[in-house]
This record gives sequence, C-alpha cells and structure tokens, in this order.
Amino acid sequence: MTLLLSSALVTPGFANDSANKSVVFTEKEMQTAAWIRDAARADNMSYKILESLTTEVGPRMAGSPGDARAVAWAEAKFKELGFDKVWKEPVTFPAWKRGVEKAEITAPFQQPLVITALGNTVATPDQGITAELVEFASLKEMMLAPSERIRGKIVFINHKMQSSNEYGLVVPGRSKGASEAARKGAVAIVIRSVGTDSHRFPHTGVMTYDADVAQIPAAAMSNSDADMVARMIKRGKPVSLKLEISASAAGSYTSYNVIGEMTGTELPNEYVLIGGHLDSWDLGTGAIDDGAGCAITMAAAEFIKRNGIKPKRSIRVVLFANEEQGLFGGKAYLAAHQTQISKIQAAAEADLGQGPVTKMASFVRAEALPLVKQMHTVLAPLGIEPGDNNAFPGPDMGDLRMAGAASFGLALKADDYFNLHHTPDDTFDKIEPARINQAATTYAVFAWMAAQAPISFGSGVELLKASK
Amino acid sequence: MTLLLSSALVTPGFANDSANKSVVFTEKEMQTAAWIRDAARADNMSYKILESLTTEVGPRMAGSPGDARAVAWAEAKFKELGFDKVWKEPVTFPAWKRGVEKAEITAPFQQPLVITALGNTVATPDQGITAELVEFASLKEMMLAPSERIRGKIVFINHKMQSSNEYGLVVPGRSKGASEAARKGAVAIVIRSVGTDSHRFPHTGVMTYDADVAQIPAAAMSNSDADMVARMIKRGKPVSLKLEISASAAGSYTSYNVIGEMTGTELPNEYVLIGGHLDSWDLGTGAIDDGAGCAITMAAAEFIKRNGIKPKRSIRVVLFANEEQGLFGGKAYLAAHQTQISKIQAAAEADLGQGPVTKMASFVRAEALPLVKQMHTVLAPLGIEPGDNNAFPGPDMGDLRMAGAASFGLALKADDYFNLHHTPDDTFDKIEPARINQAATTYAVFAWMAAQAPISFGSGVELLKASK
Repeated sequence: MTLLLSSALVTPGFANDSANKSVVFTEKEMQTAAWIRDAARADNMSYKILESLTTEVGPRMAGSPGDARAVAWAEAKFKELGFDKVWKEPVTFPAWKRGVEKAEITAPFQQPLVITALGNTVATPDQGITAELVEFASLKEMMLAPSERIRGKIVFINHKMQSSNEYGLVVPGRSKGASEAARKGAVAIVIRSVGTDSHRFPHTGVMTYDADVAQIPAAAMSNSDADMVARMIKRGKPVSLKLEISASAAGSYTSYNVIGEMTGTELPNEYVLIGGHLDSWDLGTGAIDDGAGCAITMAAAEFIKRNGIKPKRSIRVVLFANEEQGLFGGKAYLAAHQTQISKIQAAAEADLGQGPVTKMASFVRAEALPLVKQMHTVLAPLGIEPGDNNAFPGPDMGDLRMAGAASFGLALKADDYFNLHHTPDDTFDKIEPARINQAATTYAVFAWMAAQAPISFGSGVELLKASK
Repeated sequence: MTLLLSSALVTPGFANDSANKSVVFTEKEMQTAAWIRDAARADNMSYKILESLTTEVGPRMAGSPGDARAVAWAEAKFKELGFDKVWKEPVTFPAWKRGVEKAEITAPFQQPLVITALGNTVATPDQGITAELVEFASLKEMMLAPSERIRGKIVFINHKMQSSNEYGLVVPGRSKGASEAARKGAVAIVIRSVGTDSHRFPHTGVMTYDADVAQIPAAAMSNSDADMVARMIKRGKPVSLKLEISASAAGSYTSYNVIGEMTGTELPNEYVLIGGHLDSWDLGTGAIDDGAGCAITMAAAEFIKRNGIKPKRSIRVVLFANEEQGLFGGKAYLAAHQTQISKIQAAAEADLGQGPVTKMASFVRAEALPLVKQMHTVLAPLGIEPGDNNAFPGPDMGDLRMAGAASFGLALKADDYFNLHHTPDDTFDKIEPARINQAATTYAVFAWMAAQAPISFGSGVELLKASK
C-alpha cells in the first residue's frame, strides 16, 4: 500500500493528455512496426545470445561463482551489442549453498532415489535422517491430517502437476510444505517434483521457513521416483527413507541487476522496460529459465538499435538478479526506482521459456487502448491473440505493476517449460531457433511501438483505479 | 568352431522326421493358438511382473547387492507364478564397482558436466586428471589421427547416435575407444553417450581394455553436455576437462541364471527357450533394459500354464545373469548345455524394450518353414510382419544359435529403447501396458506353437549348413 501511495505522488495528471495528441500510430509508424516484425523474423540474435550465455557461463545460481560470471558476461554483452548505456544496480540477499544430497529407501525394498535439495533448506545431521514416510496427495491434505499421523515421520507430498497451468496450484507444497509439516512434528519433507515431465530429473526451487516452527530439511524427488515410492507405499508395509543433505546458508551476497538502455529520441527519460532474470538454478544451464528471457529482450532492443529506428522513448533491458530465491532483483529495482513509476511507459518481462508469444494483454489507461489494438494488429500475423487489459508483466515486474506501472503480458507458450525448469535438463539444446526468434520479434515490435506511442500509457493510482 | 563340432555330435539325423509326421499344425492347434493370442491381450501379467521387479528390486548391476536381491526375487517369482521347475545355474565373472564420477570444464569457461563412468573403467588418480580435450567425430576418425594430436590429452569422441539402428555403428567408441586412445598416448577418454535422447542423462555401458596398452579412464557425457562441449571447442581456444573417477574392479562374483520351466506333455526334455537378462545397469531400475524382457517371457509361459494348455515340449524361461558386462550368463548357459543343443526346439530372447513385436524371423530347417508360416498367420493380426530365415535370437542366445540352436527373432520396436537404456531414466513409468502386453502375447503364441510343433525345428551343423 505504501508503494501505491508513493507512486501516486509522481504521476502528473495524464487525463488531459489525449485531448492534445492523436491517440493513433501514424501510417508510417505502423509500416515501421510491420517492417520490424518481418525483418526480425529473419534474425537469429536471440538464439546466439542464449548460446553465448549457456556455453560461456552456464549455471549461475544467485550467490554462486556463476552469479558473478553472469554479471560480467551481461555487462560485456550489452556493450558488445551496442547499447547506449550499460550499468549495474546492487542487489543484496542471503546466499544459500547446495552440498551433498542423497536419499534411499531403506525398507521394505532398498533403492536409491534421485532427489535434490530445495533452495534454502537446512541440512540433515551428518548421519542423515531415517524415518518412515507418510504420503499425502497435496499440501492441503497434509494440513488437514492429524499430527499423530505425521509426528516423527518424513512427509511425502505426492502432488502431481498435470499441466503447465497447475504451477500455482502445486508449488505451495514446495514453498511452504516444510513449515506446515514441521508444525505437525515431521522430521523432514520430500515432495514429488513440481514439474510436468516424466523423466528422472528432480526439480529444485525455493522454499521458505515460517519463523515460528522448527526448520526441517526439504527435498524433491523426480516424478519417476515419486511414482516408485507411491507403489512401495501402496503395498501397505511401512516405507522408510534415509535422507542426507548438507546444504547451508552462505551469508550475505551482493549481486547486480545488469541494465542496458537504448536511448530514446524525444523522451529519453521515459522508457519501455523489458528483461528477464539473469540468475538460474544450478542444476542445469538456465537456458529456458531464464536465459531465454534475457536473450529475447536483449535481442529485441538490439535489433531496433542496429537498424537505426530509434523510438521517442528509451528501451531499457533489465537482467534481474536472484529471481529464483525470492524476487530480490525485482524488489531492488522497485526500491531504486519507485519514485519514477510514471517514467515506465510499459513493463513486460519474459520468464516462461523460449516462446512463441501466444497472447498480448495490456494494463494501460483507457485512452491508450486504441494504440494497444493497433499494436495487436501488427503482431497478429505472428499468431498472437489479443488479451484483456489486466496484464501481469512477469515475476520481477509484478511489484512495479502493483505500484501502478503500465504493463504488458506477452504470454509465452509454456508447453515444454515445466518439463525442464529447475532441472539439469534445462540446457541450450532444447531451444528451437524459430520459437525464440518469434518471441524476440514480438518483443521488438512491442518495445518499439510502446516507446514510440503518441501518449503515455498511464501510471500510478489512476491507472490502478481505472483497471478495477 | 569347437562349439559347432561338439553340438553336431548330439544332433541325431532329423532329416527323416518330416517323412513320418504331418508338418502342419492341426486345425485345433491353430484355434488354440488364436485363442491364446486373443485371450492374452486382455491380460496384464507382464506389466505386473515388471512393476514388481522395478519396485521391489530396482537397480541390479551384476555383482552388486542388487544382483543377489534380483536372483532371490526371480526364484520366488517363478514359484509364485506356478512354474513346474525352478532352479539356478551359477555364473562367475569379475565384478566392477562404480564410485565417484565427476567432470568439469576448467577452461576457457568453467562448467560442471553430467557424466558417468563406463563399466569396467579404471579410476583416475585421487586428484583427477586435468587435460586438454581433443574432439573426434568418431572412433574411426580418432584412429586415423596422428598421435601428436592426441598425446597427453583427453580424447572426446563426439559421435552422435541418430537412430536406433545405429547402435552397432556408434558403440565401438564406447567399448574400444579407451584402448585405441591410449595407443596414441591419450590420458583419458570421454565419449558422447551412445543414446538417441536429448536429455541430460549420460548412458553408461561396458568397455574393455586391450591387453597390450595402458588402461586409461573412460566416461560418457550426456548428449546435452556433448553439444555444449562441442560449442566450446568450436570457439577455437583450448578446452580443458577435469575428470574424477573412483571406480574399481571388485573381485570375482558368482551370480546365477535363474530358470523356470513349464513341463511339456510328450517331449518334456525338449524345450522352447525364451527369456531376458536379469541384470541391469545401476543408474536406473532396469525397466526397459531388460526387466521388460524378463517380464514378457515369464508372463508368456505363465499364461499358458494358468490356462492349462500345455504343449508337447517344455517351455523354459531363462533370466540370464550379467549380460551387460560381457554376456556372462549366456556363455555360462551355453557351457552348461552345449551337449544338448538339439533339445532346444527354438530360442528367442527379449532384450530390446517393451514391445510391441513388429516382425518374426526364424532360423529353422526347411521342413519346418510351413509351420513358421502358420505361426505367422496367427500373429499377423498383432501387427507382426514376416521375416527371413536367418534370425538372431538375442544377445544371450547368440552363441547358442552359432552352435546350431533353432532360433526365432521376435523384433521389438526400439523407438524409445535407446533414449532410456543405461540411464537413470530407465524406470517403470515409461512402460505402456498395451505395448508390453502385445509382446507378452506374441511370446505366448510363439512359445506354445513352437513347443507344440509336430516336428523338430532342426539343430546343429545341418541347420547351420542349411541356412547358408
């Protein structure tokens, strides 16, 4: 709420804006946008950038040595790509370190499991924790169960994610399961991976502890292992798991949001904000999550610059630090820029894989909706549907939107995303040039048109009110 | 050659056989066979047996504790399934133990790789081996290269297996690469996994050392990693790899071929020989390689027994020990039974996944070909094509065939087999009931008809000659 008020203070009345200016793109502007759409489709810069990041940096978990290498890579890459301004803004957070992670069923059938520690988990004692498993179909079911069923045991949340739409439904078992299990006396928690694949990869991801309960170790097993453990449990005899995890907190770490900007011609202080998050989980090389988002948005801005078609406003690409462990980069960006929400013409992050973009939603004032319609006209041939005017711009820009930043939601097709994300299998060979290129093209058209728009898309309390 | 002679001695002249007996199946026999085909399709015993093996035993690398558990499981399962006779025959071999296996690129870009030690490899020194990589497109290309390019380096054979037909083409890089690389002064070898998948799983598999050269460590990286390393090398700067492997030889071990037999009514000492190999690699749970083959053939014989339709000859199911590390079970079976090759009416192993069976080839004397044709008539509705009369019965039965055992080749569809085999991803959740059931049904029809056939299918030198 504080944020809403503070941003309201810096949004000069834009209601009269439309009275003075035409609220349509000119024919020439529409032609330029269509040219970008068609010409960018023949470009493979996004693919090249992602190849560079995954090959030359690879895993870049926040706070790890890969984090610093990624920051150095990003700064150098922005410069190499000819961005007008390149800078970093610090982001400080508590780091976490992965260590040994092992699990095996010890009874009634001895079998090793493929598991991974969840981000932020505490360790087990050196000798591990061995206890009986108690299975629940979901976090909710576990929370309804009596403590007597759980006390002294290892909770196994076997909640299968059936489709890419179910992330929000299933992920609380990962993020909050440990504290809820501890509340009922569990000694550890192991979940079915939050992922739609059927391969033997565990999916990591962040979890947090509530302050008022004991911190118990938390891990995820692959979908294949979860199926197997469920089959064992179904036989009716107690099933015991031995879990060994040596992860640990690793002190405070300062990384950076790395920012590149193409300067606008008329309103250089106003900007279209695009980007992705630079950090990745450590198991894979962060190709789809979220190297793709970084590459898509860097390539979009670079294409405009390279072709000398500068719009009125600036285009700013932010590669956010540490999204994975708690949106730290997004929060730091908001803190550093919250008095200038009205400078953001439109915000749109890319963090759902390699594309293509399938839908464009907006979050703009009513006067700008004809412009959004024109933008969609240009993008429709790429297979993009129109969306509503209640867009969410992406995780790192979510708080900006809540503070009243005009936003766009460029929905990426996530059919493969939750198969790969947070696993060792998130690697560059999964990227299809035609898919990532369509996304980069869409971002280029979007960014150029939003930056060129004849009026502000709105901001602050008035925008928030208007969207109700 | 010794084997051919010895088996020839025990094959009484069967040439007159056909003069005395009708060489067609009776109408009633054909009806029974068709009944088996249709009734077995509604049965899910093969799926259940495989579920049991993968859940209750899981990984069962030859010489590991899982090996002994698998032998105990197999004996108990044969008895539970009502086989008339159940016994074990010893198989002794040198065991090998996996240990630590780690690799990382140390320059010019630091990245961990996902690798696995190849079966039988020696260890690196404790501190690992760090050296420059030298890439070759195939073993052949490496063998043609001058030693100066290789001396002191780690050979990287980047031979991509494009389809399931290419196993024989690509696998020599795994099995013989180390000695060929050592001959040119390499300090280690790391190959692209021999597998058709694009996931980040390394495929293990056996390799052997020639006696006349140094033994250097051998490992495989996943296809995803091979792509990445190739991209690094393409940049033109030296790429260094650090490899740590602590695998070791683990002395002599005695496992068992576990055998179950359904006794025939008229010629109980003659038998149809079916089976798979009971051992698996240790990374997965050996569902597709070769739990499926064990389950398919056990279920086929059990279905016949359960329905009280005993054929004239016996049906013997052999679950071979240690196929993976050198066909030890198959060799032991031949050694124990080589004076009785003529007792084998027909041999057919299942070791190429979960089915379906797509083709039936035979290796029988000419007089029996009309019977084979009738067998195919019954099986054709399952989508099975006719094959030639030069069948290969499978790896563990290959030497039996070379010694003159009549054989069948029931070709399993291998579209997914080389994606999964020898990886952690070889797990039960990949099994489709309809696929494995079709294979079990095919083996049931085949086994019953072969065991019921009015004449011997031939054996020994005369059969081998006739097939020329």
